[in-house]
Amino acid sequence: MSLHPLGWTPALRLRILDQTLLPAEERWLEVDTVDALIEAITALRVRGAPAIGIAAAMGLVSALRARTVGPREVFLRLVERDAERIRAARPTATNLGWAMDRMLRRAVATEGDGRVVLRALEAEAQAIWDEDKEACRRIAEHGQQLIVPRSADAQAYRRADAPGNKTAHAQARSRKDAPGDPRAVNVLTHCNTGFLATGGVGTALGIVHRAAERGVPVHVWVDETRPLLQGSRLTAWELVKAGIPHTIITDGAAASLMAAGEVDVVLVGADRIARNGDTANKVGTYALAVAARHHGVPFYVVAPFSTFDLACPSGSAIPIEQRSATEVTRPLGRQAAPDQSPAYNPAFDVTEAELIAGWVTEKGILQPPF
Amino acid sequence: MSLHPLGWTPALRLRILDQTLLPAEERWLEVDTVDALIEAITALRVRGAPAIGIAAAMGLVSALRARTVGPREVFLRLVERDAERIRAARPTATNLGWAMDRMLRRAVATEGDGRVVLRALEAEAQAIWDEDKEACRRIAEHGQQLIVPRSADAQAYRRADAPGNKTAHAQARSRKDAPGDPRAVNVLTHCNTGFLATGGVGTALGIVHRAAERGVPVHVWVDETRPLLQGSRLTAWELVKAGIPHTIITDGAAASLMAAGEVDVVLVGADRIARNGDTANKVGTYALAVAARHHGVPFYVVAPFSTFDLACPSGSAIPIEQRSATEVTRPLGRQAAPDQSPAYNPAFDVTEAELIAGWVTEKGILQPPF
Repeated sequence: MSLHPLGWTPALRLRILDQTLLPAEERWLEVDTVDALIEAITALRVRGAPAIGIAAAMGLVSALRARTVGPREVFLRLVERDAERIRAARPTATNLGWAMDRMLRRAVATEGDGRVVLRALEAEAQAIWDEDKEACRRIAEHGQQLIVPRSADAQAYRRADAPGNKTAHAQARSRKDAPGDPRAVNVLTHCNTGFLATGGVGTALGIVHRAAERGVPVHVWVDETRPLLQGSRLTAWELVKAGIPHTIITDGAAASLMAAGEVDVVLVGADRIARNGDTANKVGTYALAVAARHHGVPFYVVAPFSTFDLACPSGSAIPIEQRSATEVTRPLGRQAAPDQSPAYNPAFDVTEAELIAGWVTEKGILQPPF
Repeated sequence: MSLHPLGWTPALRLRILDQTLLPAEERWLEVDTVDALIEAITALRVRGAPAIGIAAAMGLVSALRARTVGPREVFLRLVERDAERIRAARPTATNLGWAMDRMLRRAVATEGDGRVVLRALEAEAQAIWDEDKEACRRIAEHGQQLIVPRSADAQAYRRADAPGNKTAHAQARSRKDAPGDPRAVNVLTHCNTGFLATGGVGTALGIVHRAAERGVPVHVWVDETRPLLQGSRLTAWELVKAGIPHTIITDGAAASLMAAGEVDVVLVGADRIARNGDTANKVGTYALAVAARHHGVPFYVVAPFSTFDLACPSGSAIPIEQRSATEVTRPLGRQAAPDQSPAYNPAFDVTEAELIAGWVTEKGILQPPF
């Protein structure tokens, strides 16, 4: 399956699948200036913390490829200036700064003129991509232990003392109309964390892709993920392409599905993970974590090491990107609110470590301190 | 302020403000057949449990007004047949069946021919409206005790043992960018429960309207309320008209605002309240109740007695309306998901009584058994 959202042209230009147009249209853009790269990142034409890091590294190369003439020091200053501009495109995903740090270190460590340094940067960008692909593969393998067919054992996951448990039984009896598959493992996820968000099979959704590949029956509850609908637009698109059973829900419906016993596990990605395990992810993730705790449903964060920011002590130190009110008031460009009404639109929220059952990484399922 | 969504024409036709077109357009419809009334109710041109009851009663009169010729028994059969069809238009809001029961009782109890019975039904429909208006007024007064300026006292509302409290402090320090007004009472609400949903000032939002009228500083967090956006389309429209400060948020953002200490109280309406207090309301309400409990934020249901179904023992007996998947996959008519992706779209969820601090009614703030 080829669902990768990034690529090189033969002339070393960055190609990006414009994710703002999915699922209606699959259009590729060529990006070969820093301005165009920053526009593509801030407009979310490429998004997902790992994919942003990879695109930033590749885009830096793409932007520098025609500017290698001149002394080495001049080129290094270009690299540094461009990398700093790209780093500032979005504040929350740590992978962006992490990728720029790697590129800068590689540039400085490479002897030779601009053309030699550029070739090294190309290799570094490719390495960032390849490593993420391999990290995704390993994450998906480690995550398989969370995808177990529903059984008495699976029910044991649920904390006996979860306050929602008596509700769960009541609603489970009454909500026979919920279309979850009782023979499948019902995974609930938020935003998009698959091929489109990474350099490989994905993080949280990568676990699902791998389970389906292994033949494990799995059904995905896809949170639509307002305001930008990365769930219904992107995750559902990936699951259709992969032939994996899924059902889209509004974000507000997730808690009542948990109460009805229709969710076996919640798997989400991350944009930045602090040293103590507090995790920033797409807005709405925290509400899911609170609901999962109430119902005793296991809640896991799935991310490569490039998303861990060990210099960040806790969630309160993670910068949260504020995005335009019109993302809320004009969904898909259509007026949904009075012109006079303000909207508050944080792109992310922070889930404290205490609500997270584990962090699925390329080195296994971890617990803080990392 | 005239925000009432219902009216009579001089010829006793029902007039309905088409709420599906708000806030872009304020268009009134005339409804004078049962088919048109059922269409208006199922398409949510009129919505909100109390308003549905009133519109059903008025619409029954409107549909019967040209059919009073013939023997009394023939007319009574017409009344009964039409009322049963209207009753079945939507399953969850108890006010619909309650209003039809009242109309049928009044018809049977009225001596005289069709024209006499019709006049009695007109009076009964008007009484249902007038009583709801008065119920809203009393509810709004009783609710004022919940709208207290933020202070050390207000903080005491928060349960000391709420597990989210330490998070709240951490996020409050970090989320200085949230635009809540620290000098106002910050009310969070879901869906629309104001003028547009009732025959008067509203239920949950009626409390806010009354507080503003009294000069109490209040700021409303308006959950946009997917899939049909009654929060951003209707509640925000009402608050703009009333000049009340408010901010629209996505439904998924509510929990993190609670964690940041930005929500003083959650007020929601109801579509059906069971004898034990379990409450069906717009999908997403249950997630708010769970989050409110986690953060020790008081969560109140606000509804007139016409919404209480004392024949219903508990939430598991409340029928939940399943609506079209396209409400989720095509927000405001625009494609947001692959054609092949199914969606699950329950219009309501059930919040168990244990999560509800109180039921604000025209007779005061009650606790079950009612």
